[in-house]
Amino acid sequence: MAGTSKAGVFVGAGKPLEVQEFPIPEVAPGSALIKMEMAAVCGTDVHATHNPSAPHPIIFGHENIGVIADLGSELKYDVLGRPLKEGDRAIFRPAPCGRCYNCTIGNMCRVRPTYGLIPADKPPYIQGGFSQYLYLGDDPWVVRVPDEMSTERALMAVIGNHTVMNGIDKIGGISVGETVVVQGSGPIGMGALNQAKVMGAKRVIVIGAPADRLQLAEEMGADDTVSILEYETPEARIERIMELTDGNGPEVVIECSGAGSAVQEGLSMIRFGGRYLVVGQLTDYGDRPINPSLITRKAVLLSGVVGSTYKYILRSMEAMNSVVKAPVEKLITHHFPLAEINEAFESHENLEAMVAVMRPNL
Amino acid sequence: MAGTSKAGVFVGAGKPLEVQEFPIPEVAPGSALIKMEMAAVCGTDVHATHNPSAPHPIIFGHENIGVIADLGSELKYDVLGRPLKEGDRAIFRPAPCGRCYNCTIGNMCRVRPTYGLIPADKPPYIQGGFSQYLYLGDDPWVVRVPDEMSTERALMAVIGNHTVMNGIDKIGGISVGETVVVQGSGPIGMGALNQAKVMGAKRVIVIGAPADRLQLAEEMGADDTVSILEYETPEARIERIMELTDGNGPEVVIECSGAGSAVQEGLSMIRFGGRYLVVGQLTDYGDRPINPSLITRKAVLLSGVVGSTYKYILRSMEAMNSVVKAPVEKLITHHFPLAEINEAFESHENLEAMVAVMRPNL
Amino acid sequence: MAGTSKAGVFVGAGKPLEVQEFPIPEVAPGSALIKMEMAAVCGTDVHATHNPSAPHPIIFGHENIGVIADLGSELKYDVLGRPLKEGDRAIFRPAPCGRCYNCTIGNMCRVRPTYGLIPADKPPYIQGGFSQYLYLGDDPWVVRVPDEMSTERALMAVIGNHTVMNGIDKIGGISVGETVVVQGSGPIGMGALNQAKVMGAKRVIVIGAPADRLQLAEEMGADDTVSILEYETPEARIERIMELTDGNGPEVVIECSGAGSAVQEGLSMIRFGGRYLVVGQLTDYGDRPINPSLITRKAVLLSGVVGSTYKYILRSMEAMNSVVKAPVEKLITHHFPLAEINEAFESHENLEAMVAVMRPNL
Amino acid sequence: MAGTSKAGVFVGAGKPLEVQEFPIPEVAPGSALIKMEMAAVCGTDVHATHNPSAPHPIIFGHENIGVIADLGSELKYDVLGRPLKEGDRAIFRPAPCGRCYNCTIGNMCRVRPTYGLIPADKPPYIQGGFSQYLYLGDDPWVVRVPDEMSTERALMAVIGNHTVMNGIDKIGGISVGETVVVQGSGPIGMGALNQAKVMGAKRVIVIGAPADRLQLAEEMGADDTVSILEYETPEARIERIMELTDGNGPEVVIECSGAGSAVQEGLSMIRFGGRYLVVGQLTDYGDRPINPSLITRKAVLLSGVVGSTYKYILRSMEAMNSVVKAPVEKLITHHFPLAEINEAFESHENLEAMVAVMRPNL
Repeated sequence: MAGTSKAGVFVGAGKPLEVQEFPIPEVAPGSALIKMEMAAVCGTDVHATHNPSAPHPIIFGHENIGVIADLGSELKYDVLGRPLKEGDRAIFRPAPCGRCYNCTIGNMCRVRPTYGLIPADKPPYIQGGFSQYLYLGDDPWVVRVPDEMSTERALMAVIGNHTVMNGIDKIGGISVGETVVVQGSGPIGMGALNQAKVMGAKRVIVIGAPADRLQLAEEMGADDTVSILEYETPEARIERIMELTDGNGPEVVIECSGAGSAVQEGLSMIRFGGRYLVVGQLTDYGDRPINPSLITRKAVLLSGVVGSTYKYILRSMEAMNSVVKAPVEKLITHHFPLAEINEAFESHENLEAMVAVMRPNL
Repeated sequence: MAGTSKAGVFVGAGKPLEVQEFPIPEVAPGSALIKMEMAAVCGTDVHATHNPSAPHPIIFGHENIGVIADLGSELKYDVLGRPLKEGDRAIFRPAPCGRCYNCTIGNMCRVRPTYGLIPADKPPYIQGGFSQYLYLGDDPWVVRVPDEMSTERALMAVIGNHTVMNGIDKIGGISVGETVVVQGSGPIGMGALNQAKVMGAKRVIVIGAPADRLQLAEEMGADDTVSILEYETPEARIERIMELTDGNGPEVVIECSGAGSAVQEGLSMIRFGGRYLVVGQLTDYGDRPINPSLITRKAVLLSGVVGSTYKYILRSMEAMNSVVKAPVEKLITHHFPLAEINEAFESHENLEAMVAVMRPNL
Repeated sequence: MAGTSKAGVFVGAGKPLEVQEFPIPEVAPGSALIKMEMAAVCGTDVHATHNPSAPHPIIFGHENIGVIADLGSELKYDVLGRPLKEGDRAIFRPAPCGRCYNCTIGNMCRVRPTYGLIPADKPPYIQGGFSQYLYLGDDPWVVRVPDEMSTERALMAVIGNHTVMNGIDKIGGISVGETVVVQGSGPIGMGALNQAKVMGAKRVIVIGAPADRLQLAEEMGADDTVSILEYETPEARIERIMELTDGNGPEVVIECSGAGSAVQEGLSMIRFGGRYLVVGQLTDYGDRPINPSLITRKAVLLSGVVGSTYKYILRSMEAMNSVVKAPVEKLITHHFPLAEINEAFESHENLEAMVAVMRPNL
Repeated sequence: MAGTSKAGVFVGAGKPLEVQEFPIPEVAPGSALIKMEMAAVCGTDVHATHNPSAPHPIIFGHENIGVIADLGSELKYDVLGRPLKEGDRAIFRPAPCGRCYNCTIGNMCRVRPTYGLIPADKPPYIQGGFSQYLYLGDDPWVVRVPDEMSTERALMAVIGNHTVMNGIDKIGGISVGETVVVQGSGPIGMGALNQAKVMGAKRVIVIGAPADRLQLAEEMGADDTVSILEYETPEARIERIMELTDGNGPEVVIECSGAGSAVQEGLSMIRFGGRYLVVGQLTDYGDRPINPSLITRKAVLLSGVVGSTYKYILRSMEAMNSVVKAPVEKLITHHFPLAEINEAFESHENLEAMVAVMRPNL
């Protein structure tokens, strides 16, 4: 399995991503080489391309699925104990270190960076998804993709859904019969919608734009949608949500938009005693006007979440394979070969694509 | 038990409270007449005296303890099944209605107002604690105060502690060995300090002022205090808390100050994955600059709480009687007869008193 | 609304139930008179007919739905705040007392017996469902049945489902993608099956008999069934469940059979770290051989549950109306007029009926 | 650091343990060599000496504390990020694999056996605590023992306490003011007693024997003790517990005795809605008569627990260092040099020792 792998490389803010060629390393006994199928373009990557202090060179691509091209002799089983062999499709992460404080208390390991965030300036170089081949390194965490599951569906399991599942657990789950408002109609919002439905929500209302995203939300199972182009102000949206919920407001709100006014808006519409999951405020845009008395007086339970432990990746794979019936494959709207990596990033940035995937071996 | 009862009455914003005389009603079979021992002056009452739209006339006083002066024939047992008799000290609330949505899902009943919030312009008139006698009405919720428990201690159980206990449950409890920061050194902050200690916190740090309150905090068991007079800015306090916590920040923060900048400050100092209880932001002072990305990026679990179901009153009584060893009686710093009700309110407002109590039969 | 109401009365163990006639009381302001539509025959009632120490006379029938025939002037709203009027269909319970220890800590009230368990030897007499009219008494807890919901569906919401929901909450819910085994194919087992499915279980396997019940389970959505007539021993059933679960056993088991060997069998098949809800062991049949080391070594979380607070009745109604898609109406297999009340009990006892309902006004 | 290490070796059931000499391996970069201070004799080891199918040779000793004698160049920090150096006292475990199902869902890793359970017939040989030196192997999980903490106290943190903490979390914690019964007065029972006290239990009652163990329990803080020599039957003990709890029974029971009748006894005395942690039934002694209707009718939440994730080791260390005030050092009643390892095992087996420790370098 000698040879080289082409990969799309981030070489610094403000510069186009470059396709470069890297040597493929020998596969160590506890490792494997993956021939990439699909890697999603994520907002985090796009943000990095505008951030002068973002480290480089890096091969991005942290939401990945590929085929085992070369399997080390000691990497015999996936996390569920199923035997691994060359030709299997897999999703994968670096195993957590197991020795740090976060590993110990059950948080996401912050010692070992995930594939797609590892500098590409030293061996084994190819550790991001926007590459023909990806090298897993020692003793990785691997889930074999069941044969009956499409590649697209498996990929969607690791886009947003696991993070949302982690977060929903933090706010005590969703109870059968509850009403849920999702703020945001991008990939994370779609994950929130799908998870809320399979947990037994009575009704899920998605707030977002543009029209084609709201239509996709309806195809996924949204009971109602509220367009921010039609209801332009927070006040108008709050009033609309109240109309749709008998004046009570929703028991659960999930913020997936990242919009500056979203948290205040969510707190204003949520029912007394409601639960509010804030996934979308990952990027630091500074202070916002928020009325903290809403939290106390409405006795709101509120949680942030960033990433997830691998438990939720496993659970998300299971959910997507056997419980979620929505046609989530449709959320992957754009496919790009390596040579068009800059076009791929652009399709994400201008909201043209819901999910854009790189297919490095296309 | 005919006769009359003097009571301090709120007759409208901006006017002094007045001592008036009311007829004492006949005691119905499921009711009782209480001869008041102590009723605390609460910030809610003080706020009302400045609120032009606050309803009146009202006999305030919702944190109460008194003696059963006349017991209806059908009110035989307290909530723990202990027999009631005249001469028993008791704490008491109206029984929840049991029929509304909040009662049904386990929230505090909002149909039946608690004693101290009931208009005094119609029979039975005397349903607030700032009165010589208080009439319980039909089938009230009553806890007999154990003989070995001082009146002051029992009263402290229903000041802040039960609300804080309810809130701490909402954020998943405090685990043995955790570090807790309490923002605010008033009665609620002292309740948070006491509860955190008996739940096994390793260290409780109280942020507040003035010096005598911080000294009281230390007498209650605070491991460290941070004076806002010494550390005047949020930045200085955050830095101080980091010094005191090996640079990690606390696992738990409890906001009991009501200060405008407190929530942002708490979110800034809390440890990754921390839990934040916001008790103190009951009054609506409008929007504040808060950075919502702190919630997402630090994966904070945050909860408001307002009042509590009676479960926590029962638990707070039990805790104060048998588990909390701190000298909480000392927190009652001022006692006033009915005639000095306006002085009592003033002692609360100018922060001279930690807890001021009315003793209507003094 | 004067007149009389015929009712089926339990007059003592070993004697046939008798149809008797009772005077209909005047409706007090906070009460209502219900014209009964359907009341289910429950195993508890059937057991009582064989119990020499069961109190009598009693009009049984505690799973009820009826129409408001006469509404007191002060009973204006249901628990969700919806206005009530004569002609509305409703489900109903006595309001909890709100004053006892169980009410206070959030358990089911044990002070006020539910309709169907109240002696019929004094006014208002008619407080069980096997009666043409049922008198609610003061300030009852009422849920209006939505117009779009069939009477059968609403009745099924209060048969088993609410108790199972309460229990599932106690074991920490069911997570999306989990495998659930339900022991027992009677009405409670069907409730467990339905709830597990809408909470996102990947797969629900029902163990039971006879064949027509297992077929009903499949119509409700069971992914697999295991007949105890085909797999006659616990060992055979455990082996079969292991085959169906890749040798892991289920994450969750729900015991709804009441069979003597069921708990040991469930503990034997459950996965390491699994959760086990024991609903079915309400009747005391004495000691059973159970290996307690299964609990420790497999780190099983196990819970009993008996009845439920009204929160779960509300939630069950909501779930049945808007989330559960299974044709639960089919579970009501037999309808009887009052005159055939003894035949109704017989149809329950000989397992001919899945759910038998009395229709007192038929 | 060349040389040899003497160790006590289990060479098969029915044979005395033997002191043998092993070569000390070179320390790899990510590893360390520990000079043992104390290793506790655990019931698990004693059981193994009677079990003909127990694997051997093994150097037992899995509850350990020692001094870092030789530190690999890459093992720089402990789990809390504190720098490690030679001469530091430490507790330690193999890092979890991070790749298996149990690691992924947050259970204890079952792939990597802990020190004290690793065969001694191949390099690096010395991986149990009953040895002068213990070799940690690659990238172990290490906690530095704070200087102010005694060696005895640190050792006690990893005897029982962490498992009990894990288990108490599973039953929803202990709430301030609750009454707890601990069944068993051995080391695990003492851990349960200590943890219950620091979590705010109002009262902890220990059931056990003989008298000196019950006296130790009282020194640790037990509010009451019940001797099984005085109250010889389950019935007598249940009656005694009812007397001590106003006829209600305890809210929480923790089974740490392993006695055959204990679970039935605990279920019989527990309060309605109580929580029952079963730690002590690790050894399989076969079926016992247990009445499952107690679980359903009393709505008991019950959990087993076996071992714990390392989170609870960390938390237990913290608790023992800063929250638990009981003189837990006294629980270590016997110290033995390597040459007396068989006497050490005997002192455990005949209940003469509460905790017996090996001090291999004495």
